[in-house]
Amino acid sequence: MFIKNCWYVAAWDIEVPQDAMLARTLLGEPVLMYRTGAGRVVALENRCCHRAAPLHLGRKEGDCVRCMYHGLKFDPTGACVEIPGQETIPAKTCVRSYPVVERHRLVWIWMGDPALANPDDIVGYPWHDSPEWRMKPGYIHYQAHYQLIVDNLLDFTHLAWVHPTTLGTDSAAAIKPVIERDTKGLGTLTISRWYHNDDMPNLHKRVASFEGKVDRWQTYQWSPPALLRMDAGSAPVGTGAPEGQRVPEAVQFRHTSIQTPETETTSHYWFCQARNFALDDAQMTEQIYQGVVEAFEEDRTMIEAQQKIMSQVPNRPMIPIGSDSGMNQARWLIDRQLKAEQAQASAAAGAHPVIPVFPVTPVGAV
Amino acid sequence: MFIKNCWYVAAWDIEVPQDAMLARTLLGEPVLMYRTGAGRVVALENRCCHRAAPLHLGRKEGDCVRCMYHGLKFDPTGACVEIPGQETIPAKTCVRSYPVVERHRLVWIWMGDPALANPDDIVGYPWHDSPEWRMKPGYIHYQAHYQLIVDNLLDFTHLAWVHPTTLGTDSAAAIKPVIERDTKGLGTLTISRWYHNDDMPNLHKRVASFEGKVDRWQTYQWSPPALLRMDAGSAPVGTGAPEGQRVPEAVQFRHTSIQTPETETTSHYWFCQARNFALDDAQMTEQIYQGVVEAFEEDRTMIEAQQKIMSQVPNRPMIPIGSDSGMNQARWLIDRQLKAEQAQASAAAGAHPVIPVFPVTPVGAV
Amino acid sequence: MFIKNCWYVAAWDIEVPQDAMLARTLLGEPVLMYRTGAGRVVALENRCCHRAAPLHLGRKEGDCVRCMYHGLKFDPTGACVEIPGQETIPAKTCVRSYPVVERHRLVWIWMGDPALANPDDIVGYPWHDSPEWRMKPGYIHYQAHYQLIVDNLLDFTHLAWVHPTTLGTDSAAAIKPVIERDTKGLGTLTISRWYHNDDMPNLHKRVASFEGKVDRWQTYQWSPPALLRMDAGSAPVGTGAPEGQRVPEAVQFRHTSIQTPETETTSHYWFCQARNFALDDAQMTEQIYQGVVEAFEEDRTMIEAQQKIMSQVPNRPMIPIGSDSGMNQARWLIDRQLKAEQAQASAAAGAHPVIPVFPVTPVGAV
Repeated sequence: MFIKNCWYVAAWDIEVPQDAMLARTLLGEPVLMYRTGAGRVVALENRCCHRAAPLHLGRKEGDCVRCMYHGLKFDPTGACVEIPGQETIPAKTCVRSYPVVERHRLVWIWMGDPALANPDDIVGYPWHDSPEWRMKPGYIHYQAHYQLIVDNLLDFTHLAWVHPTTLGTDSAAAIKPVIERDTKGLGTLTISRWYHNDDMPNLHKRVASFEGKVDRWQTYQWSPPALLRMDAGSAPVGTGAPEGQRVPEAVQFRHTSIQTPETETTSHYWFCQARNFALDDAQMTEQIYQGVVEAFEEDRTMIEAQQKIMSQVPNRPMIPIGSDSGMNQARWLIDRQLKAEQAQASAAAGAHPVIPVFPVTPVGAV
Repeated sequence: MFIKNCWYVAAWDIEVPQDAMLARTLLGEPVLMYRTGAGRVVALENRCCHRAAPLHLGRKEGDCVRCMYHGLKFDPTGACVEIPGQETIPAKTCVRSYPVVERHRLVWIWMGDPALANPDDIVGYPWHDSPEWRMKPGYIHYQAHYQLIVDNLLDFTHLAWVHPTTLGTDSAAAIKPVIERDTKGLGTLTISRWYHNDDMPNLHKRVASFEGKVDRWQTYQWSPPALLRMDAGSAPVGTGAPEGQRVPEAVQFRHTSIQTPETETTSHYWFCQARNFALDDAQMTEQIYQGVVEAFEEDRTMIEAQQKIMSQVPNRPMIPIGSDSGMNQARWLIDRQLKAEQAQASAAAGAHPVIPVFPVTPVGAV
Repeated sequence: MFIKNCWYVAAWDIEVPQDAMLARTLLGEPVLMYRTGAGRVVALENRCCHRAAPLHLGRKEGDCVRCMYHGLKFDPTGACVEIPGQETIPAKTCVRSYPVVERHRLVWIWMGDPALANPDDIVGYPWHDSPEWRMKPGYIHYQAHYQLIVDNLLDFTHLAWVHPTTLGTDSAAAIKPVIERDTKGLGTLTISRWYHNDDMPNLHKRVASFEGKVDRWQTYQWSPPALLRMDAGSAPVGTGAPEGQRVPEAVQFRHTSIQTPETETTSHYWFCQARNFALDDAQMTEQIYQGVVEAFEEDRTMIEAQQKIMSQVPNRPMIPIGSDSGMNQARWLIDRQLKAEQAQASAAAGAHPVIPVFPVTPVGAV
């Protein structure tokens, strides 16, 4: 069971080329994506309403897609516009069409009630297409429930154990994050970790123009269901970074980590690591990308193994620890929205959803 | 759940050689086939009644098969005739034996109540062993429910979309078939499609001794559960083919397509394409065979993808279209027999089955 | 469902090296094994109590293991002794620790109530580490329920059918075993088979220092759940072997066959074939080992095929035969203990288990 009434990422823009179609399972649903002649992304139920043949074996015809089993043709709204050998097309002859917005190089999709889809609610990732930033888009397929990845991203103590030679330093486990929650809107969490007079992690060392101790930071915003935006970097110690000043030689990154459930035990994962220096150094772009991939494979090994254990011996209790705070708040936010959607589904059809009242005080660690 | 009281194909004759045994799952049941010394095919439950070891790991001994786990020996009736180290053989020590008839190069099996098995009910395929016809027998394994294949075979509009360069022509989608149903017996459907002054499909062009426009036909009989017999061909236009005359240069084929369920999501498929010309041209036999295989792989790609979507999002409605008429009648016939068998199973044991009364008027398209 | 309150084998000693960790599923449970600095084997639940990460991806630290996801550290009792970034460790922060005994080169584990674990109940295999015997330890993974392997080992009539060229001779099927059951303790079965004036099986011929007819024997003890200890050999005919005398040239073996359930359809299998002659002949050690492996692959082919049939058509009756006697007694013993454990689980917590009263007369073949 997944949250439905929210914007999920369905693809990087380049995953939906102008001349091909992309079939992908999202929240258990078969989805087909393609572009109209004007370049707009269309997302349709990837199942012909006639005999359930997948439309990705079909053919793009202008802005429409034709099922290549019996020839039914669907327009971008999902309406059938042609049934070979038949004059009349009953209104029910249609597939589902999902609201789609392309923004900051991501294709966003709304899998829930289309009447509630508001593009203004989409979280911004301006470093994806800003001329001041440079990144290479990445994708990982996960054999794990998406919330296990969310857990991982919201608890940075794991950096010291899972990533000792890539992202982490020895100090990672000891630093307590500051966690704030937006009591309005999505309930976005802002989590800040500062490492004063610390060593640079290897990922920073490789690209830094200076050496020695640093003040470094990881400040990220996480919005449900699985949207992470991070500001991370290292500045020479004592140059005022904690007070808000960033000297030119400071290493600055913007990081994207986004998950969308594929099934109950598999997930899509989009990521990138943008920088605001040496923009034209393609080799550095690749080097940073590979560094992130290496670290993310460390996560994947652990999280997929965790999923296997959970599938093997399900329903055992999990004992909380102090550093679970961020993760617990994220799980609480997801559960609240799930419950709100269930209540909404139980209420009269067409009624406006009841937005749960979030407590004013943050939920602390158990 | 499958129809039980009917003749299913279990194998081509050559799949059951004189000196080996064939293990095959039919309707979910493990079945073993082998030949007696006199060449008669025996079909036994492929599960020793002692400890469930499969008999196909056993040994043929004369007309019997010996389980090579503990040595029990079974005769063609399924009765155990030897238990090593034991004098007495209790009557219940037996495996199931299925009625089998070998006819027209096919091995037919009756998986239901043996008392109801009447070889006279077996549908004829004389072109398999007639000296006037030549064919090469084919087999395909399918990752799909057998009724999805039946659907495909009973709706020839798909020729235009799935097989544009093999079996189909552009006109395929527009031609309406004439459908008649035998109101007696199996309820065999006869479906006729005529293409007047049309192009030959590539499969015909390759073997025809003439060029130009043709009158061509596909006339086939379909009998439940999954037995198709087709008369298909092309004659030079205006030579009287639609009126019943077939000039010597006409390209004539007889086609066989037969399915038997293996499991709820997999099927056996036997086929051949016989011709009545150039009988000794082995290269043409192979060429025609490969042409059919190429076209059938086009079907398999679509149907297995359809099965995947149906397994992923089951129980969604299917919207009927006009050209479903043949398919709908076939599904109606299969459902009627299934319901009749369920009613029969509910009635007192040994009671004669209630044969459902078919409506006199054909079931039209929805 | 498996017997819990008994000693199972978890590994050969060499499978748990001093400097690595072994992850293995036993009775459906994920288990981690490693050695303390003093060389003692520790067995812990292979699932961190915090977030279910497997501990085998963790790190040995002295006698403890640290989960490498968030750094929790567990001692050999399963107690958490460190939570990074946290002073207090709640008592419930622990993983399960299993009683382990290393004896005769086997690692024994108790998966049930630790209060009932008594090392004196462990069955002896002295030929594993006696200076008078030599063996090479073997392991097979099985795609079958462990009781199907037990069935196989307790019915030696299969030697004639499954192993005609390896372990068996033509006489195997005809020899009736003598079966005795210990009415105390585990209910160990002693099964004796004597082949008088018989041929040697190939496995004996290859190593024997003499030729000709033999008196040979297979005397084995089987203890639930799946522990077999066999004395097998061949002596020149008429040299008094049946009366208890073993001349020096007699071929003598001690054989070990032990199973532990992995899941409901997979099993672990440990075996060896020890001899008391030519102790320093490493080539003979390997030759005997390979001979046993060859024969055991014959069993595995049959038993895994049997499991497939049972999974395909479950819950069908199995017709007993006379030679099932040993197997039936073993199944009866296992069922009795399973029922006793179920009754115990239903009774008040902490109550002493009700030991079932075994009938004095052996259970004969059905």
